[in-house]
Amino acid sequence: MKTLKIPEATIIRLSVYSRHLTDVDRKGIITTSSGDIAEGVGVSPAQVRKDLAYFGEFGTRGVGYNVKDLRQHILRILGLSVDWSVSLVGAGHLGLALSTYKGFRERGFIITSIFDSDPKKVGTTVGDVVVLPIEQLVEVAKQNRTQIGILAVPAAVAQEIADQLIKAGVQAILNFAPVVLNVPPEIELRNVDLAVNLEVLTFNVGAQRF
Amino acid sequence: MKTLKIPEATIIRLSVYSRHLTDVDRKGIITTSSGDIAEGVGVSPAQVRKDLAYFGEFGTRGVGYNVKDLRQHILRILGLSVDWSVSLVGAGHLGLALSTYKGFRERGFIITSIFDSDPKKVGTTVGDVVVLPIEQLVEVAKQNRTQIGILAVPAAVAQEIADQLIKAGVQAILNFAPVVLNVPPEIELRNVDLAVNLEVLTFNVGAQRF
Repeated sequence: MKTLKIPEATIIRLSVYSRHLTDVDRKGIITTSSGDIAEGVGVSPAQVRKDLAYFGEFGTRGVGYNVKDLRQHILRILGLSVDWSVSLVGAGHLGLALSTYKGFRERGFIITSIFDSDPKKVGTTVGDVVVLPIEQLVEVAKQNRTQIGILAVPAAVAQEIADQLIKAGVQAILNFAPVVLNVPPEIELRNVDLAVNLEVLTFNVGAQRF
Repeated sequence: MKTLKIPEATIIRLSVYSRHLTDVDRKGIITTSSGDIAEGVGVSPAQVRKDLAYFGEFGTRGVGYNVKDLRQHILRILGLSVDWSVSLVGAGHLGLALSTYKGFRERGFIITSIFDSDPKKVGTTVGDVVVLPIEQLVEVAKQNRTQIGILAVPAAVAQEIADQLIKAGVQAILNFAPVVLNVPPEIELRNVDLAVNLEVLTFNVGAQRF
C-alpha cells in the first residue's frame, strides 16, 4: 500500500460517485447536491463534501453541482478522461471473466491484447481479441503501447510475467495472483485478493462485538 | 457503505496482516513487532499499532507480539475463527474462477452449494460440488445453513436471486453483478466492482497532478 495524501477510500468513493452521476445524467437531471449524491450511494453528505474538497471547489453555494461537469471533473481526477491500453495475461476462468467484463470498456479500459501459455487457448478469440502465445508478450504489449497489465495467472509464474510487462513498458499492474510481487517504485501495483471482500462481510456480521 | 466506528481500510489491513502472520508463523518465527509487520506488508509501524489498538492491547512492551496469538486474535476479529457456509450463484467464468479460488477455503469460506439456471451447467461438478438448478436455491441453501451468498449472475436477475438468498436465511451477500441491490438493513451487502481496482491504479499513475 502506498502512502498518499489522499486516502484510497476517497478514490474508491469518487469512483462510486462518478457511476452514480452517470446514472443521474442519463435520467436527464441537470443539477445535484452532496445530499442527493450521499443518498444515492449510501454515505453521509459530509463525506461527499470532504472527498470532493481534496480536489478543489466544484459546486455553487445554494445551487449545488452541475451533474455533467462534476462527473467530468471526477473522471479526470481518476485518470479516466482518456482510454487506457490494457494487456491481460491468463485466459483461464478469471481471465475470461475479466475480458468479458463490460465495466472495463465503459470506463475506458480497453483490453488490447490477451496472452496465455496454453497452446489450446492460443488462437481462440475472446470478445474481439485473439489470444496470443505468452512468448509474444513483450513485443506485442510494447507495440500496443500497453499502459496496464492484468495478471490472472498462477502464483508460480506471476513475478516472471510482471517482469515482462514492466519490460514492455507498462505503468501499472493489477495482480490477481496470490503472491507478493517485487516491482520498481515507479510501477503502480495493486493486488486484488477476492477473499478480503468476504472478510469485510464476516467482520461486519460480527461487528456488534466491538 | 455502512458507517462503522472502525474504518473499512483497517479491516482490510487486518486481513493483510493476518496473511502475513500466517507466512511468518509457517517460517517458525515466534515473536514479531509492529515494525516487522509494517515492513512485511508495506505500511507504517504507526498504522499497524493504530489498527490493532481498535481492538485492545495485544503486544508486550519491549517484547512485541506473539505471532500465533496475534494471528488468532485477528482471525477472531475478522470472524474467521469459525468456518462459513457459502452459496455461489452463477457458474459462468466468474463463478468458476471464484469456486476454484484457493484463498476462500484457506480462510474458512466453504462453498457448500453452487446454482445455475443453465441446464447444460446443472449436474456438472465444480471442485467437489455439483451444480444444482437455481429452482433449488432456497431449499438447499436453507438445508446447508448457508450464511453467505455470492452473486456471480447477470445484473438483470441479481435482485431476484438476492431475495431468494435472503429467504434462505443468509446473513451476508457478496455481489459481483453491476447493479444496486435493495436488501433489508440486517443483511450485510458488499458490492465488488472489478473496474474500481483499475481506477485506483490510474489515479495513482496520475497522482502527481494533485
